[in-house]
Formats: sequence, structure tokens, C-alpha cells
Amino acid sequence: MTNFVPTPTVPAPDIVRCAYMEIVVTDLAKSREFYVGVLGLHVTEEDENTIYLRSLEEFIHHNLVLRQGPIAAVAAFAYRVKSPAEVDAAEAYYKELGCRTERRKEGFTKGIGDSVRVEDPLGFPYEFFYETEHVERLTQRYDLYSAGELVRLDHFNQVTPDVPRGRAYLEDLGFRVSEDIKDSDGVTYAAWMHRKQTVHDTALTGGNGPRMHHVAFATHEKHNIIQICDKMGALRISDRIERGPGRHGVSNAFYLYILDPDGHRIEIYTQDYYTGDPDNPTVTWDVHDNQRRDWWGNPVVPSWYTEASLVLDLDGNPQPVIERTDASEMAVTVGADGFSYTRKSEGEGAEAQGFKLGAQV
Amino acid sequence: MTNFVPTPTVPAPDIVRCAYMEIVVTDLAKSREFYVGVLGLHVTEEDENTIYLRSLEEFIHHNLVLRQGPIAAVAAFAYRVKSPAEVDAAEAYYKELGCRTERRKEGFTKGIGDSVRVEDPLGFPYEFFYETEHVERLTQRYDLYSAGELVRLDHFNQVTPDVPRGRAYLEDLGFRVSEDIKDSDGVTYAAWMHRKQTVHDTALTGGNGPRMHHVAFATHEKHNIIQICDKMGALRISDRIERGPGRHGVSNAFYLYILDPDGHRIEIYTQDYYTGDPDNPTVTWDVHDNQRRDWWGNPVVPSWYTEASLVLDLDGNPQPVIERTDASEMAVTVGADGFSYTRKSEGEGAEAQGFKLGAQV
Amino acid sequence: MTNFVPTPTVPAPDIVRCAYMEIVVTDLAKSREFYVGVLGLHVTEEDENTIYLRSLEEFIHHNLVLRQGPIAAVAAFAYRVKSPAEVDAAEAYYKELGCRTERRKEGFTKGIGDSVRVEDPLGFPYEFFYETEHVERLTQRYDLYSAGELVRLDHFNQVTPDVPRGRAYLEDLGFRVSEDIKDSDGVTYAAWMHRKQTVHDTALTGGNGPRMHHVAFATHEKHNIIQICDKMGALRISDRIERGPGRHGVSNAFYLYILDPDGHRIEIYTQDYYTGDPDNPTVTWDVHDNQRRDWWGNPVVPSWYTEASLVLDLDGNPQPVIERTDASEMAVTVGADGFSYTRKSEGEGAEAQGFKLGAQV
Amino acid sequence: MTNFVPTPTVPAPDIVRCAYMEIVVTDLAKSREFYVGVLGLHVTEEDENTIYLRSLEEFIHHNLVLRQGPIAAVAAFAYRVKSPAEVDAAEAYYKELGCRTERRKEGFTKGIGDSVRVEDPLGFPYEFFYETEHVERLTQRYDLYSAGELVRLDHFNQVTPDVPRGRAYLEDLGFRVSEDIKDSDGVTYAAWMHRKQTVHDTALTGGNGPRMHHVAFATHEKHNIIQICDKMGALRISDRIERGPGRHGVSNAFYLYILDPDGHRIEIYTQDYYTGDPDNPTVTWDVHDNQRRDWWGNPVVPSWYTEASLVLDLDGNPQPVIERTDASEMAVTVGADGFSYTRKSEGEGAEAQGFKLGAQV
Repeated sequence: MTNFVPTPTVPAPDIVRCAYMEIVVTDLAKSREFYVGVLGLHVTEEDENTIYLRSLEEFIHHNLVLRQGPIAAVAAFAYRVKSPAEVDAAEAYYKELGCRTERRKEGFTKGIGDSVRVEDPLGFPYEFFYETEHVERLTQRYDLYSAGELVRLDHFNQVTPDVPRGRAYLEDLGFRVSEDIKDSDGVTYAAWMHRKQTVHDTALTGGNGPRMHHVAFATHEKHNIIQICDKMGALRISDRIERGPGRHGVSNAFYLYILDPDGHRIEIYTQDYYTGDPDNPTVTWDVHDNQRRDWWGNPVVPSWYTEASLVLDLDGNPQPVIERTDASEMAVTVGADGFSYTRKSEGEGAEAQGFKLGAQV
Repeated sequence: MTNFVPTPTVPAPDIVRCAYMEIVVTDLAKSREFYVGVLGLHVTEEDENTIYLRSLEEFIHHNLVLRQGPIAAVAAFAYRVKSPAEVDAAEAYYKELGCRTERRKEGFTKGIGDSVRVEDPLGFPYEFFYETEHVERLTQRYDLYSAGELVRLDHFNQVTPDVPRGRAYLEDLGFRVSEDIKDSDGVTYAAWMHRKQTVHDTALTGGNGPRMHHVAFATHEKHNIIQICDKMGALRISDRIERGPGRHGVSNAFYLYILDPDGHRIEIYTQDYYTGDPDNPTVTWDVHDNQRRDWWGNPVVPSWYTEASLVLDLDGNPQPVIERTDASEMAVTVGADGFSYTRKSEGEGAEAQGFKLGAQV
Repeated sequence: MTNFVPTPTVPAPDIVRCAYMEIVVTDLAKSREFYVGVLGLHVTEEDENTIYLRSLEEFIHHNLVLRQGPIAAVAAFAYRVKSPAEVDAAEAYYKELGCRTERRKEGFTKGIGDSVRVEDPLGFPYEFFYETEHVERLTQRYDLYSAGELVRLDHFNQVTPDVPRGRAYLEDLGFRVSEDIKDSDGVTYAAWMHRKQTVHDTALTGGNGPRMHHVAFATHEKHNIIQICDKMGALRISDRIERGPGRHGVSNAFYLYILDPDGHRIEIYTQDYYTGDPDNPTVTWDVHDNQRRDWWGNPVVPSWYTEASLVLDLDGNPQPVIERTDASEMAVTVGADGFSYTRKSEGEGAEAQGFKLGAQV
Repeated sequence: MTNFVPTPTVPAPDIVRCAYMEIVVTDLAKSREFYVGVLGLHVTEEDENTIYLRSLEEFIHHNLVLRQGPIAAVAAFAYRVKSPAEVDAAEAYYKELGCRTERRKEGFTKGIGDSVRVEDPLGFPYEFFYETEHVERLTQRYDLYSAGELVRLDHFNQVTPDVPRGRAYLEDLGFRVSEDIKDSDGVTYAAWMHRKQTVHDTALTGGNGPRMHHVAFATHEKHNIIQICDKMGALRISDRIERGPGRHGVSNAFYLYILDPDGHRIEIYTQDYYTGDPDNPTVTWDVHDNQRRDWWGNPVVPSWYTEASLVLDLDGNPQPVIERTDASEMAVTVGADGFSYTRKSEGEGAEAQGFKLGAQV
């Protein structure tokens, strides 16, 4: 039985959106080459140990902090809240949950003011802040616009063993579910949850966790994503293109997954849909639908299911990883024991229902 | 030792371009649904047994003939020559080669005049014609322009066991090589050959043959190809998306391979480059370069290497398939016995050179 | 002196977004040909006098109602509110403002439930509703996806003589200003105001009003908009392309203005930016900046400044049009009496500051 | 009566394509900023007085030479011929025409070998060469690929008073006409002529000449052209966007015209069509068809009709400009004396035939 996180009696903080991620990298120069040289993120400021990066259309100080450290990991998933008072609300909320919290009036990073960081019930380091330095929004700086330009931070993705537990916790925190993946036995494999009016600010992927599955940046159009692939080919680092490009079934976005020098996974993502109405319809996908993860039925590589980044506690130590005990999406859909279908056909067997094995070994 | 095809003493016919393919399909209604309903090719005319299709910007009668028949196969690879006299030249050329030829003043298909068909030295049914009915060129009929519009026939691709033999034969016929794939032992795995000013009018892929590997249509932009994938997903036939979309290393084109109801392979292709200068540089790829077939290092599915369509002799019987004896590209690059690299690195081993296994089974 | 609309003591209704517009057309068959045949909007339902249309990604019943009538005009600008109770709030709010209101539990159109319509202080027919019939969201119906597909209703645009008065009224109603156009004398020429997280749900354009300037639908990418132009060229109705395509300075969106058979103006619009943060920076443009309306400095045609659609009162009679007394944007920026610059240059005169006259007569 | 250029008795040189243009600029640093900084052309080499530029997919030494000089003008329209012997053929051909020629075995510019330059019968400085240094083709250097990347030189455009005379001369030289603009009185206003398999290598525009109307570079896709506009907006040089972007009627290409610091006109161009068949249909446009120059009926600015660059004789002096005596396209189609229509309608008058005045003054 799942032990659900209790719902606090105090109001949840009013979250606006996912705002930035702080990641620890083991070779800052190499990471700079990747995020600035290859991906073209814009440097707000930097020093010997830290680089503050933002996407083209951002006006807050940063969307990504790279910090030099001994172990590749994620130090914070940071959300912006609606007002300074909501930082107090966040602190009170997590205290009632019995979580460890740390408040810093001067912020945990440059460019961010009064913030609280918490070790949340799922083991993730969440941050909540309102105050931030406004910087030049580069929206119309087309003189700086690269062919694969990243224009917005779109979302986080977290790996957690018990998706229904995580989902209930996030719903209490004010997130709404846009889509999920289930099976007919009632197992939930993943859920997409939003505050802003897109498909998600964060998603929960069932697996051993707490770990960070990926952080996603948006481009304007699909060709921008193709250019990133083309450039990685030109730089002869195509082995760091992990999966895609493709069209997601879930979210309908055009996507690409790539790996930074430490193996942190970055998604490049464009053109999901508006979710701002209160009765926005939730879409549930059958885990056996072979178009759920890729609308074209292209195979998901095993590493995408199994690999993810460690997350840190508030002392900077990696959180222990707890194994998922529910069925694994990879196991139930791929290979000898799993099955998937292209269409729910009247007929029997593979021919009627289709399925693309799709891959060599 | 390879037995090369002798070079005739009479001049080769002056070929303009690949013009159309005639394929035999086993269920004409199903094929119509695929080529017209899904792909949006334009029907020039049709009767009970035959459908004549053209791409948007074509002004000759057709680029593809679908003919109902008992066995899925290819009846003709048809090239347009520069003048009526060149049909005579073609007939004389193949006669001197000792090939079986058939001349029909009224053409082999509707909309085409005086033509000669031959069983060429590699076993393929080639046709040469000049006369054709001009039809409405739909270039500016944007009222008919679908989101995945096919605008031109781009090329053929033929499977043949002995690529150097085929290449020498086609060079005699006036084709020039734009790109090829080789290894350090001198084995040629594939060659791309053109008459018009693109990367190819036809390519030779090493394998058991004679067989037709694919026929390719061009779109204007990359998003048109993505739409074809998206539409096949919506129609729940993503299991007929065989490979891609991706960026080719060879040719630099953006590509997609899909399968028609009989398993005939269609490529959708866009944005290769100009090859019209007499000294256009030939590009040679190392067979172990993992970006040669897909610039992003995404895996080539085994079926793409092994499956192809039968071709017919002039009596309409399938040509026997002869096994390739040279090394197979799939064997030397994939799996336990093969190897591929992302970059030619100084260091040793997989980490330095990279390689994306990329796939589940 | 401007007479500002008083702020009611009761809370403003909590508006989610612009949801649909009801327009009166004088020849329903012609309008159907335009909106369905040319633009590809999807028919939810229709009868002899009325057609209910929606964009691809919409799940509420409609985004546009075409109603046959004697005079081309706009019958309603309809907003969705956050809950059924907010319809009560809207009614109370406008009653306190002394506006005429009409409440219909069964809705004013098919597919919409309990609604209130008002004659607002600026003379516009506003509607507020929550209840609506959910219909199939066609987001992944790529089999229906046309090359110029309209995927969302984006915004309204209203012509009103006194922009500061209108702006203050809409701010009281909960809208926030994303951008505006002013001059150094303090005259406001236009303002963009949003509830959802885009640049606007509605905008105020200074001019004789109340009139409807345009209603805007979004596409996914820029090429979709170009296709709409291309198609109108193919149909030989390019004289109904009024302005564009181009890049807006204000909003940064790629745009196109076209005219329906009655002269109602439709904008096609894509890729503005996220405005959801509470401190989203407001952008103010100088009315003399020649890139404010078109980032490329292309001229705004006079009709775009002068023409607009009548709006109806709750009895279905056209509202009288009141003249703008403030300076007109057209007059101050174009021609003999106006001036515009490409850049704020140190030097004097046209050469240093640039300006593109851009047009013939 | 037109005095046609006599057809020589010796064979015309076998021209492959337009290859490069040499232009004189009055401020080399400013021009470098435009062609390299704004447009991103690639520098093959440069010295104090000269810059050699090429497009991404070019393998010959250059497509554009910028040479510092006292008067902005064009020094050469250079064509590549099929073999070294064809340079001899060109020299003989123009000698028989009585034209001044100059042969330089070492070439007129760096990177080009044995060449002949001529003052052709229309007064243009034409060059013919075969030998050239091959340089790195940057086709797959996506690490260098800018968002508005120029990938090929596409064509020249020349202003000449007597289009039929120029056309007959170029047809003798082996060019074929793809499209032209005429009126019902038999006046020819412009003609598009090709050697390579696109719509043109050069075009003749009726007007005072000899002058250079523009030189055109191709992009891969339409969004690349839009980015060039966006970047010029960001750099606050939108006053150098002269016309477009738009869709041509003639050629069907998507286009943009911009002006370099000396007023030399550059076209950015993409997606015309294949013309390689010997019987490629010629398209004739009515000069009164308002979609001929812009498929969307957007107005052609007067400067586009009237302004052009001087061309130099072989001594480097500007050729005198001769006035066109035939009707002017601008005069017959625009304003008080001209007329244009959107559609050939049964009805009478502007309403039935349409026409977009489209512009302010």
C-alpha cells in the first residue's frame, strides 16, 4: 500500500511556474562548452565556480545554474511563487509536512532573493522564491538568435518510485494533471502536472528515485530542434543524442533528448498545447499504446528508462535512491515479456495490432 | 573477380532524369488509399487496374504508376531522355550489350509515347522515353497543397550484389557518382549517381538483388516530412514508418522511410545539394562512420538493410535474386561482429570514439 | 479630460481567457466558404442560419459563431470565467457599473450554458460564461491538419476612442497590460491586455469606436501563415490580404491580416511570448518608432487604421460610433504631417534616422 | 525596331551556371559588416582591398567579391563553363560579335584561373572561367550554420532597355527562357533565363541600362529569410529592407530584397522549381496581373523599379545608361495611368477584378 503524503492544513504556496534548476557538474569548462557553445544559452553572469544561464525570452536572472562540484547531481528544482508572502507560505507548508527546510533571505544563488529550500516528501530539493533580478529579455535580439535557439525553460521531469503518491502530493501543492500513463490494472507509470498554462511544469516518471530525469527548454519551431541535432552531428558528438527527435504522444510536443558532459539529460521541446482552463481535459494513455511516448512508434532506448541524475539533500549529499516496486514501463512494453500495439484492432496478433520493433543491437 | 559490364561502342543515351516508376500492387484500392489518401499524390488518370500519379510540381503525365497484379514488384524504372532520337540510342546501346529490349512506339503506359524497355545487365527493368503528355503543373495550386505535400520525384534506389560493377555500368551510361560508402579494404557498400543536378537519380545499395530498395519523393521543407509522420500516427499506421525521420550523412538530405501496403519502400526526402558542376567533389564515407546513414547516429533498423521489392523481367516474371558475396554493411557495422564510431579519436575504445547503440529489443 | 469608468465595489469576475466571438455575416454561404473552405476552421455544428466553428486544439464548443443577418457586425466578445459563480459575479459587476445586462441560463448560443451578456462602458457587447459542451479536441488529428491550420483562438482587438479610459476599465476587470504605444506628450495610441499567459486576450486600438478591429487565430509555425497567403493567391483573392505577413514589433508575433467577405478583419498570429509572471515587464513603444507595428518597417496600409466592424447592442442594433479626439496614430506617423524613424540616431534628418516610405500609390 | 544582336557562326560557350559577381564598394569595412556580420557569408580570404565570400554549400573559391573602389558598381557577372576549352570558345564567340574581350590566364581574381572578360552587346561585363580553387564545402558544418544561412548563389538580374533584344542574345548564348512578363500589345517587360536546372541564372528586367538589378542567394527554407528580416530589425536597419518578404508569382520562389551599404540590391530567395527538361513549359504572365511580382498582391515599391547599380567596362569606368523607350512596367501597372487586376473577372470594374492599392504615402 502506498503511504500518501498528508495534506497540510495551511494553504499551499501559490506557484507560478518552474523557474530554474541548479545542477552540479564535474568539469565546468566542458559544461560551459556544451550549454553555451553547443546550445547557445545566454550567460547572465559567471565566476570561477558557477555559471548563470538563461533562455532567450527570459527576464528573470537565470533558468539554469551550473555549479562545479565533485558529483554530478541536481541541487535544486526552483519554482517561482506569486508574491513574497508565498515564500512564507511554502516554508510553513513544508514545516507542517515535517520536511527539512532552509530559508535564506539573500537567496541561494545570485540574482534570486528571499527563498526557501526544502527536502520534499519525495526526497527532491525544491526551492520557492519570488524576488529576482530582472535582466534584459532578449526576445527581439534576433542578432543573437542562433539556428537552434532555446527560448524558454519549459519543465522539469522527476523520477520517483511511487507515482500516485507523488501525484497526490503535487496536486495538494496546486499542480493539475494534464496527462498520465496507466495500465488496465490501475498502475500509473507517469504523470504530467502543470501550474502555468502548458502541459507541465514538472512530470513524474515511475522508476528508482528520487532522481532528475531531465530538464526541458523550448524552441519556437521544429526546425530549431533539428538544427541542434545537425550541429551535434557536425561536432561529432551525436553519441550524446540519446533519443529523438520525435513527436510525443503525451503532450503532443516535438522533442529531443540529449546528454550533457556529465550525463544530465536535457530535453528540447516545442509546441505542446494550452491547458489554462479549469476543466482542461486530462488525457490518459494506455501503457501498451506504442504511440504514447513517440507518436510515430519509434523505440524508446533503454537508457532513457533507466538512467537519471542524482539529487542532493540540503547538505549537498546525494539522496539515496529507492527502488520502484510497481511494474516498470520498460518491462511491460518492450522485449520478451512486454507488449505494445500500434492500434487496438479487432483481429488477433501482431499483424492486426501492429508494432514496430524498430531497432538493431 | 568482378565481371564488369562491357562499355558499348555506340554512344549512351542522353538521360535527363529519373521520371517515373511502375509498381505492381496486390490491392489497388488499399494502395490508392495510401498514395492518394495518406501521401496526397495527384491522380492524373485512373482505371480499374491502373492509377497514374504525379507530384505537385510535375508537368509530365506521371511519376508513379500503380498497377494491380498478383505479386508486389517493380515493372519499370523509367528515365526521361533528351530527345526522341535518344530512345533509338538507348535501344542500340542495350542491344549491343546483349540485353533483351522491347520497343513500343505507343508507350508502355498511358501518357508516355515511344519508349524502349530493357532488362539491363544488373537485371533491372529500365525504360527510356522522351515523348509524354504535358499535364497541369500544380506548382501554384496552393489550394491543393497539403501539409505533407510531395512536390517532385527525386530518385530511385536499387539493391545489387556487386556495387562496383553496377557503378561502372551506370558511369558508362552517363551517370556521375556524387557520394559512396567504402571501407579500408576497398569494398564498396553503396554509391549515389546522378544525371540531373541533385545528389542522385538512382543509387546502388549493396545486397541481394536485383531488387528495388526505394523510390523517393521530395518535399519543400522539413516540416512537411514531420507532418507525414504525424498523419501516419493519427491514422494509427505508425508501424509503417520504418526508419526516420532523420538527417542523412550521405546526401545531407532530411529523410523518412515508410512502407506501402505491399511493403514497397518510399522515401520522403528534402534539401540535398547542387551537383551540376563537372568537377563536383565526390564524397566518400567510411562504412564504420556511424553518421554516414544518419547524421545523428540513430540506428538503421535491420529491415532497412534486408528488405526490398522484387523486380520484373519484360514478361512480368520476377527476376531471380542473387546473393551478395561481398561484406554486408549491416554485418560490418552493427552488433557483435561489426563496429561503428562517432568520431575518429586518438584514444582507444568506445568511450573515445563514441557510438550509439540506440535501441531496444 | 477623460471620464474614467468607476471601479465597482464588488469583485470583478475571474476571467480565464477570450473564448469566442459571435459575428453577423450577410451571406452565410460565402462566409462558410471563407472560414471553412479557405481557412479550414472545423464545424462543430451548423444550421440554416448559424455555423459554430472551432480551431484544431479547442475543446469547448466553438471559438467563432457566424450568424446570418442584415448588417455585418459583431454580436459578442465572449470570455470564459473560472467557475459558474463567476457568471454571477460578472452580472453583479456590470449592474453596479450601471450597464445593461442580460442573463440567459440556457446560453445565447448552442454549446454554451448559463451566460451573461452586457453592453459594457465602452459600448462593446461582452459575454461571460463558464458552462460549455466539451467537444473532440483535434490536437492530434493530423489527418485533418491543413497546411495553414489554425490551432487556437488567440485574441480580440477593439477600437475605442479613449484608450486610457478603456485600459483603466479593463485593468479593473483584471486584465494586465503587456505592451502599449505612446508618444512623448502622453497620448496612448493602443494597449495590449491579457488574462491568459500570452501577450493579450484583447487589445485596445485608438480610433472611432466602439468597433471590432479584428479577431485573431494562432498557427503553430510561421510557414502555416505563409501558406494561407499562398492559398489566397491560388484562389485569386489576394485583394483580401490586407496587411502582412510580417513580424510585429509589439508582441513579437508573426502576423497576417485578411478580410472576410463582409470585411470583418481576421488576424493570423503566431509565437508571441509568455506573460504569466506577476511582474511581467510592460513594453512601451514610441508611436514614432517605425518598427512598432512591423518590425521590418513595412508600411501599415491606411485601411488597417481606418476600417473596422460595427458592434451590436443587446437588441441587435449597431452601436453608434464615437469619434476619437486624441491624435490619430496614422496622422502622426505617416505622410506629410507625421514622422517615423528606424533608429534613434544622434544625427539629424532622414538619413541618420532612416525611414522606409515603402509604398506606391 | 529592335536591332538584334547577330548570332555568331562559332558555337556558344557551354555555360554551367552563374558563379560569382564582383562588386565595387565604397567602404569595405561597412560592406564586410553587412555581408559577413549581418548575412553571414563565409570569408574564403581577404586583404586590405578585397574580400572573397562564399555561400555555405559552395566548393569553388567564391560567389561574391567585394572590392574597394571609388564608385559603387558591378565589375563582373561571372559564369562557370563546362571545361577549360569553353573559355576559348567564349573568347572566340565574343570576338566574332565584335565585343571587346580581355583574356587572363591567371584570372581576374584570386582563386580563379584562366578567364575571359567581355563587354557584351548589352553593355554588361561578363566573365567566363572554368579553373577554380576548390575550397571546403561547408554543407554539413552545422556548427557554422546561422539562423538566416545563405546556402547557394542563385542568380543575377540585369536591367536592360530592350528585353527582346537581350533575350535573343542570351538564347543564342544557350540560355533558355523559363518565364516572362508581357502585355497584349506584345511588349516584353522581363524574362527569366537559365542554364542550371532552376528558374534562372540571370533575368532581364526592362529599364534604363545596362545596370545590375540584384544578385540573389538561396536559403534552405522560408524561415531563414524571415530571420534575416528579424535580424535587420534587431540591428535597426529595417530601412534597408526594400521589398518583401513575399512569394513571387514568377518563379514561385519566396523572396526578400535588401540593400547593402552602397545600395547594391541583394535578393534572398528560396524554393523555385526544377527546369531541367528540354521541354520545360515557359510561363508567360500578363503585366497587368497583380500577382505576377507578388503572389499575394502586395505592392512593389517604386525604388525597386527605378533603382539599380552601375556596371563597369573593362577599364573600370561606368557604362553609360541608355533609357528604355518601351512602356515601363511601373507606369502601366501602378497609379493613375496604370492598372492591375487580382482576377480576370466577367464583371466590370475594380470590385469584380480586385486590386490591392496596399500602401500609404
